[in-house]
Amino acid sequence: MLEPANPANPYTVLVSTRNAHKLVEIRQILGPSFELLDLSSIPALGEVEETGTTFEENAALKALAASAHFDGWVLADDSGLEVDALSGAPGVRSARFSGEGATDVTNRALLLEKLAGVPSNQRSARFRCVIALARGGEVLAHFSGSVEGAIIGSEKGAGGFGYDPLFMPEGFAETFAELGAETKNRLSHRGRALAGLKSWPGWVR
Amino acid sequence: MLEPANPANPYTVLVSTRNAHKLVEIRQILGPSFELLDLSSIPALGEVEETGTTFEENAALKALAASAHFDGWVLADDSGLEVDALSGAPGVRSARFSGEGATDVTNRALLLEKLAGVPSNQRSARFRCVIALARGGEVLAHFSGSVEGAIIGSEKGAGGFGYDPLFMPEGFAETFAELGAETKNRLSHRGRALAGLKSWPGWVR
Repeated sequence: MLEPANPANPYTVLVSTRNAHKLVEIRQILGPSFELLDLSSIPALGEVEETGTTFEENAALKALAASAHFDGWVLADDSGLEVDALSGAPGVRSARFSGEGATDVTNRALLLEKLAGVPSNQRSARFRCVIALARGGEVLAHFSGSVEGAIIGSEKGAGGFGYDPLFMPEGFAETFAELGAETKNRLSHRGRALAGLKSWPGWVR
Repeated sequence: MLEPANPANPYTVLVSTRNAHKLVEIRQILGPSFELLDLSSIPALGEVEETGTTFEENAALKALAASAHFDGWVLADDSGLEVDALSGAPGVRSARFSGEGATDVTNRALLLEKLAGVPSNQRSARFRCVIALARGGEVLAHFSGSVEGAIIGSEKGAGGFGYDPLFMPEGFAETFAELGAETKNRLSHRGRALAGLKSWPGWVR
């Protein structure tokens, strides 16, 4: 960083998401040296179609769409769950896994259904996150992180969001929904990707 | 953790490695709440043959070999570089890439030779690290981490070790050998794997 991160003089970054859970988590992870705006600041921006086939492409699509309307730093997160027994599904379709009107609840139910009968030693999975950072209509950098784990047989825990109540990170006997935000963010795909973004040398105000 | 990490009362862990660079880095990352022994404490243990085909298997082999000689926590790290243009090589053979008598220098030279003529946008790669944690002759947990990046065309930087002078993490314009230990350890495969180990709930003295 050209100037060190400084809570008294934070970097202002627009987060291109309409997922309130994601925004809260990104705020927890980035801490006080970053002041985050959300898309309510950009009423002109409609829904962004996530037509990419990779997390990288979708993160770039979301970052560029917001960057066209905002003169400053823009961050977009595309992330998802890759389940080995499902050949990497739901992957980039994680949020839309159960189709039209999908919610976290219907997505988790579908995942459990598809894995019914799959033994516990064949339920390996990973969360992946790719962050695109844009400014002036260009993607300047991307950062990625992943965490290995397994999909358990029924939901456990009330924290987190998305597939968290079904995902047990390797080495742990609790799901992401049970571990608490601090532990989850230290281990998680999103925490790992954002560690790269925080340390990025290109930050200027 | 049943008891919080505490520099005044560190966990004693044997690190099953003969690579002094790795030991230094693991010590930097784990910090003062862990007191690390190395294999000089276990003169009876000969060379461990890394016959596994995955990082997971080799980490387990090294952890179990040391655990047979040591009554306490044992940690083993298996890690390597996966280059997409080489179908994932050198992978588990990273340390032995250039054959009998391989050194960091001969391994890097061979990597550059194999990538000669490959354009910069096709030189994507990742470092992967798997840590196995054993006690009483059993592997109790494993933890993994990875970092995405690219192999540049010639060596840059004097820090780090192994392939670090050739590896530029995504989002950065400096190699792992240029970034300094603090930044490298925050981004690196090993730093990410050890974050899982540090937060593991099974620690007891």
